[in-house]
Amino acid sequence: MNPSRSALLTDLYELTMAQAYLERGMTEPAVFEFFVRKLSPHRNFLIAAGLEQVLDFLADLHITQAELIWLEETRLFTSQLLCFLETLRFTGDVAAMPEGTPFFPHEPILRVVAPLPVAQLVESRVMNLLHFQTMIASKAVRSVLAAKGKPLIDFGLRRAHGAEAGLLAARASYLVGFSGSATVLASMAYDVPIYGTMAHSFIQAHRDEREAFEHFAHAQPDNVVFLIDTYDTEAAARTVVSLAPSLKAKGITVKGVRVDSGDLAAHARAVRQILDEGGLPHAQILASGNLDEYRIQSLIESGAPIDSFAVGTAMTTSADAPSLDCAYKLQEYAGRPCRKRSEGKATWPGRKQVYRFYTDAGLLDYDIVTTLDDVQTGLPLLQDVMKGGRRLVPSPSLHEMRRSAMEQLAHLPPPLRSLETAPPHPVRIAPALQTLAQMVDQDLARQQNQP
Amino acid sequence: MNPSRSALLTDLYELTMAQAYLERGMTEPAVFEFFVRKLSPHRNFLIAAGLEQVLDFLADLHITQAELIWLEETRLFTSQLLCFLETLRFTGDVAAMPEGTPFFPHEPILRVVAPLPVAQLVESRVMNLLHFQTMIASKAVRSVLAAKGKPLIDFGLRRAHGAEAGLLAARASYLVGFSGSATVLASMAYDVPIYGTMAHSFIQAHRDEREAFEHFAHAQPDNVVFLIDTYDTEAAARTVVSLAPSLKAKGITVKGVRVDSGDLAAHARAVRQILDEGGLPHAQILASGNLDEYRIQSLIESGAPIDSFAVGTAMTTSADAPSLDCAYKLQEYAGRPCRKRSEGKATWPGRKQVYRFYTDAGLLDYDIVTTLDDVQTGLPLLQDVMKGGRRLVPSPSLHEMRRSAMEQLAHLPPPLRSLETAPPHPVRIAPALQTLAQMVDQDLARQQNQP
Repeated sequence: MNPSRSALLTDLYELTMAQAYLERGMTEPAVFEFFVRKLSPHRNFLIAAGLEQVLDFLADLHITQAELIWLEETRLFTSQLLCFLETLRFTGDVAAMPEGTPFFPHEPILRVVAPLPVAQLVESRVMNLLHFQTMIASKAVRSVLAAKGKPLIDFGLRRAHGAEAGLLAARASYLVGFSGSATVLASMAYDVPIYGTMAHSFIQAHRDEREAFEHFAHAQPDNVVFLIDTYDTEAAARTVVSLAPSLKAKGITVKGVRVDSGDLAAHARAVRQILDEGGLPHAQILASGNLDEYRIQSLIESGAPIDSFAVGTAMTTSADAPSLDCAYKLQEYAGRPCRKRSEGKATWPGRKQVYRFYTDAGLLDYDIVTTLDDVQTGLPLLQDVMKGGRRLVPSPSLHEMRRSAMEQLAHLPPPLRSLETAPPHPVRIAPALQTLAQMVDQDLARQQNQP
Repeated sequence: MNPSRSALLTDLYELTMAQAYLERGMTEPAVFEFFVRKLSPHRNFLIAAGLEQVLDFLADLHITQAELIWLEETRLFTSQLLCFLETLRFTGDVAAMPEGTPFFPHEPILRVVAPLPVAQLVESRVMNLLHFQTMIASKAVRSVLAAKGKPLIDFGLRRAHGAEAGLLAARASYLVGFSGSATVLASMAYDVPIYGTMAHSFIQAHRDEREAFEHFAHAQPDNVVFLIDTYDTEAAARTVVSLAPSLKAKGITVKGVRVDSGDLAAHARAVRQILDEGGLPHAQILASGNLDEYRIQSLIESGAPIDSFAVGTAMTTSADAPSLDCAYKLQEYAGRPCRKRSEGKATWPGRKQVYRFYTDAGLLDYDIVTTLDDVQTGLPLLQDVMKGGRRLVPSPSLHEMRRSAMEQLAHLPPPLRSLETAPPHPVRIAPALQTLAQMVDQDLARQQNQP
């Protein structure tokens, strides 16, 4: 069973609601939008990510024969629902912000228009996919900003939350500027560049560190990066220096060393000196071990001679904010705009577009959220990507998305690019949308006053 | 592509190290153990989980033809490694604590013994699987303890980190005492009981709330739980009361209502009164919306008339501690015990067993960690589960594991069962293990002093 592909990776209520909709013939077009209600602490902006996987999921939506038999055996569902599921396909329209687009609360990044039972049924997985990669991209970009151009590698697979999280965190972090990942499958699946060194176990499996280094260098002559903190970091750096001439004689260059524990800045300084004095000024230092954007920033500010950083758990779990306050909400049904008014969770009704405005200097200035038919002059951020269940254009490659993301990042004003909390980015609700919300509220009040 | 099954869901260095091991004929048995270095804040104990998925992964370990072709095309690997991968199977032994066992730092919960390149290669995914479910079980159990026997439902799929996380969080939370999950696929895959109500969109799609409730009740006569906070919680409760007689006339019983926003205790009290006065004393109140163990505890302590709780994001992301400080470390190679001594990350060498001791009153007293051959009197926690790549016994069902977990939970001393931080549980390192560690250190010092 592949949970990534199953249409039954959904909440039970999506099925029971679909059953009720079908029973009443409520199959008119429904409009759902995905947005984030408010920023997590320590985030100044978000980066849209995960659209490609959402479109794959929608284009492939179906129930297998085994799933259908199982559903029948539960005796929870009507034959009407089972018939509907047997031929289930996604035939709706999708508009979305391209992956890599910076965005803010109240701005929809995805709009689904489809017959109500279908648009409802896909809710759980669409959210699951968009939420995760958007959260990771929005976290990883902070390390990118902190690293000031120094390369970053994703080392997070082992503590990512399951298989898909490990794989897609490699993708989302590369999208926002990581140089690559240690995760092999991310290279096969998404062409993310892969990097790797050695583990402590490699050193321990040998009788001594020197022998381990020699074996490794001969087995990987093109990628000689030694892990030097298994026993004593500086002693290992001296071992590297003493080995280098004999390796060089065999045409093998020491590319670098990795330090994974202790005071990384102090070790990096000591190791840099040992390498420089030992005739290895070009050997680079890779730092790893519980790094996040704050530690990277402080290592950079301290001037520690570290050339690149591997970031694992903090990024791959979005450790300081492992979820987004996001929602996929019904905004219109059968041509009638609607809104949720639960306490603290009210939403803006109708189909919406987000327009982006820039300063003369080319920096992001403000955004306007408005109804789809209230056309404004700024750059519209939501684009049609699927019509009648078919993709409109081939997706750009991940590398192209990454270039575009990097460019948009460069146009964020400096306060948003800081790790410090910035004043909220101006997101204006256009008069047209405010008027629509009032009309929906009045309509609602009228209904509730009727007996 | 199914990332859950791919042997390439691994870190690049696992492959390059395997390549180096093969080149030197280093294929003797290696012993790796998985353990947690230290407890996350707000955790008094951990619950072992995820073994079943690890055993599935190991039993199924292989490289597909497509993966092999891709590996060849990268030109990163020797033909020796590719030949090895072509026939890759897991032929090793595994010992582990049964799922649902409470455990503590420094106690291995899994031991893998296999030829070095194989035991190394599976590291990333074994960790990824054991880490996630153990983390979730250890978080979810806190809600179970706080709920004092009231039912808990997993509502976390949408903000779980990807497909596998959503699916396996349903499994891990059920293992430690949740009553079930909203995730349909968790029922099909693991027989986890499923529960569901309705979403706000269901109410909004109808012209008014009363009509929505009526439709829902007729479509789901056996599971009539109304979501009542879309517009006005108490008004909706009165609507439920006014509808109940006509539903009853059709043989439909209102099972309950769900409150998802606002002051849950205040709403629950007001709604309880409306339902009681309206002749619906048996209709239950389900609370949801940003719940975690602390909010559950405070709702219970306040005496709020809530019958059950749905827990989502906080549990499914282990929000306050979204990772464990865990490791899968080489403890022995070719009969020679070894240990890592990196600063702050030193490990205990050799093959180990954990013995558990109970007080006369049957409560957990202390644990002893020692070498495998130092047999003690307590209950040995690690059991042989795989030999030569084959499972020794069929796994117990998830329901059986859950019963055993509940029983062990009942034998934890009260301070460990509290949400407050308890004094550390005594985990004693036996003299035999301390002696072994000293011997390894002396051996290491000797090697490092040799030129």
